Amino acid sequence: MSDQIKIIPGGVTAAKGFQAAATAAHIKYKDRTDMALVVSSEKCVCAGTFTSNVVKAAPVLWDRQIVEAGGFVQAIVANSGIANACTGQEGLDLCRMEAEEVASRLVITPESVLTASTGVIGMQLPPDRLKAGIEDLASSLSDSLEAGTAAEKAIMTTDTRPKEIAVTFEIGGVPVTLGGMAKGSGMIHPNMCTMLSFLTTDLAISRELLQKALREVVQDSFNMISVDGDTSTNDTLLILANGLSGAPEITSEGPDYALFLEALHTVCCDLARKMAGDGEGATCLFTCRVTGADTKEHARTLAKSVICSSLTKAMIYGHDCNFGRVLCALGYSGVSFDPAHVDLYFESTGGRIHIYGDGSAKEYSEEEASKILADPEVIALVDMHMGAEEATAWGCDLSYDYVKINADYRS
Amino acid sequence: MSDQIKIIPGGVTAAKGFQAAATAAHIKYKDRTDMALVVSSEKCVCAGTFTSNVVKAAPVLWDRQIVEAGGFVQAIVANSGIANACTGQEGLDLCRMEAEEVASRLVITPESVLTASTGVIGMQLPPDRLKAGIEDLASSLSDSLEAGTAAEKAIMTTDTRPKEIAVTFEIGGVPVTLGGMAKGSGMIHPNMCTMLSFLTTDLAISRELLQKALREVVQDSFNMISVDGDTSTNDTLLILANGLSGAPEITSEGPDYALFLEALHTVCCDLARKMAGDGEGATCLFTCRVTGADTKEHARTLAKSVICSSLTKAMIYGHDCNFGRVLCALGYSGVSFDPAHVDLYFESTGGRIHIYGDGSAKEYSEEEASKILADPEVIALVDMHMGAEEATAWGCDLSYDYVKINADYRS
Repeated sequence: MSDQIKIIPGGVTAAKGFQAAATAAHIKYKDRTDMALVVSSEKCVCAGTFTSNVVKAAPVLWDRQIVEAGGFVQAIVANSGIANACTGQEGLDLCRMEAEEVASRLVITPESVLTASTGVIGMQLPPDRLKAGIEDLASSLSDSLEAGTAAEKAIMTTDTRPKEIAVTFEIGGVPVTLGGMAKGSGMIHPNMCTMLSFLTTDLAISRELLQKALREVVQDSFNMISVDGDTSTNDTLLILANGLSGAPEITSEGPDYALFLEALHTVCCDLARKMAGDGEGATCLFTCRVTGADTKEHARTLAKSVICSSLTKAMIYGHDCNFGRVLCALGYSGVSFDPAHVDLYFESTGGRIHIYGDGSAKEYSEEEASKILADPEVIALVDMHMGAEEATAWGCDLSYDYVKINADYRS
Repeated sequence: MSDQIKIIPGGVTAAKGFQAAATAAHIKYKDRTDMALVVSSEKCVCAGTFTSNVVKAAPVLWDRQIVEAGGFVQAIVANSGIANACTGQEGLDLCRMEAEEVASRLVITPESVLTASTGVIGMQLPPDRLKAGIEDLASSLSDSLEAGTAAEKAIMTTDTRPKEIAVTFEIGGVPVTLGGMAKGSGMIHPNMCTMLSFLTTDLAISRELLQKALREVVQDSFNMISVDGDTSTNDTLLILANGLSGAPEITSEGPDYALFLEALHTVCCDLARKMAGDGEGATCLFTCRVTGADTKEHARTLAKSVICSSLTKAMIYGHDCNFGRVLCALGYSGVSFDPAHVDLYFESTGGRIHIYGDGSAKEYSEEEASKILADPEVIALVDMHMGAEEATAWGCDLSYDYVKINADYRS
């Protein structure tokens, strides 16, 4: 990370002019918050990327239409518990109803309100509870950092930790802030983007460049994580930019755009890593870093294949250096290579060890390897010796709790 | 299945002229058999399909070379415990040594001996134990059905049940027998073929047609199962035909070839289903049958996506009708369709229930759905209403025991 970018406390309310609120609307959960509202005092340019799943949730259809229309956006309303997916026309009508409720309370247009949902697929949202929740949210907005965290907590499902970050950097000598929040943690295998992540910034930037930056950064951040290989029906990544920093507007690519791109990369990779490390049932953030690949796309494919394998994930959970599973996952990734020219290392705070090279196992201590794999963050380093391209993918181990959570999810 | 094909007892020793043996060679396991030998009294034409994994085990490299050379084959020697994968030149030398040992005891050529291994990747096989094992196997060959079952049991790893089948049918009025055995049960996501499966027949058939038939049948049998999405380094499917039935040789496509193709399909689907149902930790055989697809390839892709999803698998384990996960898995399969035109049913011996249609959930009893999902064999029926193509894929549920088995596999 460049020293021009500094991490600061906060999340979606870190940037100027953004407020948030959370409430317990009893959509499906009891005794916890389950609705959140993020609002900008000024109109925002907005960019978004959405799930590539053919089965798209109603809020994804609603948001995509608004983002593609290119109008200004001012609010995001989100709920947890029910995903509003596989809900037909009734589900779409509920998105419009939500947007209209928010719009009437904030005196803005329904077309400037984005909606998002996460939870069980196939159930309908309860309209009366949504309305009551929105009334409550609109009357309790705050620009405090705590309000941002509260909003993030309200959209968590099986997440165990809230995920937020904010950074600051200067454009034309003026400080600009970019913050964001995200939630996982099951059905995570983003293709176009992640489950739910909302970013806010007081940067002034054209809509075209904002969308371009988001598309570019998502490739090496959210699209490089996987918890269980299931690409959700609801994946939504949104960024709202309201221009309140006072910094000059970015309207072309150049050093300012490059700096923003790096700040966005920092924020997205941080949230993506947090999502992977807090995957359902996870006890370990399992990272695979591939170097020496012949193309960037091959590097990404190889890294992702390793962290997606049920067998490598179970190996990490068991702290068992059954390294052949890593080679196996590289081998079926679809990328062609010579196994005799691959080097594999495992690394963690417990140390670093050379496991495989020249076509077979290196001499290493099983005890030392097991110690390295017992760390809460384990990295598999793979050098392909084929070129200069690199990629990193983030996943997690496969534990009893993943099964427990997903066998009992609705009960 | 046509009434021209009858299932009979037995496996690899059911066909005329085939013998088998098993022994405890102490390769890695204690207190069980771990080496098997299958031998034909006559030279056989042979066909095979092998793993598509770039990282191929040494016995895969050995066998592929022999099958492609097109010579006659007379024996298969196999071991469990160590996979002889990621073992470099030393691993290949051990395959040749095994073939030479078998050849010298049976007075055949080393090039007519195929080898196969399954177990831990990255460890070297112990040469002395292999030699002693082969000596023992060669002196205890038998054509009894029990010998076939014993050979199958010797190559099991985490399998809980032996998998074998035999069928008989008539060619030119003469009874012909086709039998086979297979082992799973982890790292199962065959692309070219399955983990290890050996088929034997006393049919007379040209090598070209035998290979063609095997390639065709594998598409809708072994290639349609998945336990954990990991395509092994060792997948090997072999068929040996010794011609001893006395039936006229099949040398061209026609009714006889079609009947053989159907018999081969019966045997391969049976073994594939058994492999899926005995997946690591499985409590349920989970089948997805897709009908009404626009192309055969799309039908296969959709069916496989459903049985490969960690979330559908956990849902089956929990007997929880969280049907949105099935829609979600169809949606990210890569096949394009309109979710509003899909019908989904669940079926088992417990009954059949219409779950989803017209874009949202149907009215159904959760209690009844849960009862259907509690069966040891559950079928998800998906009608795409786009065409007339169909496909069936077989998988299993995801249980605590899958994690337990794979976190502790080497210990």
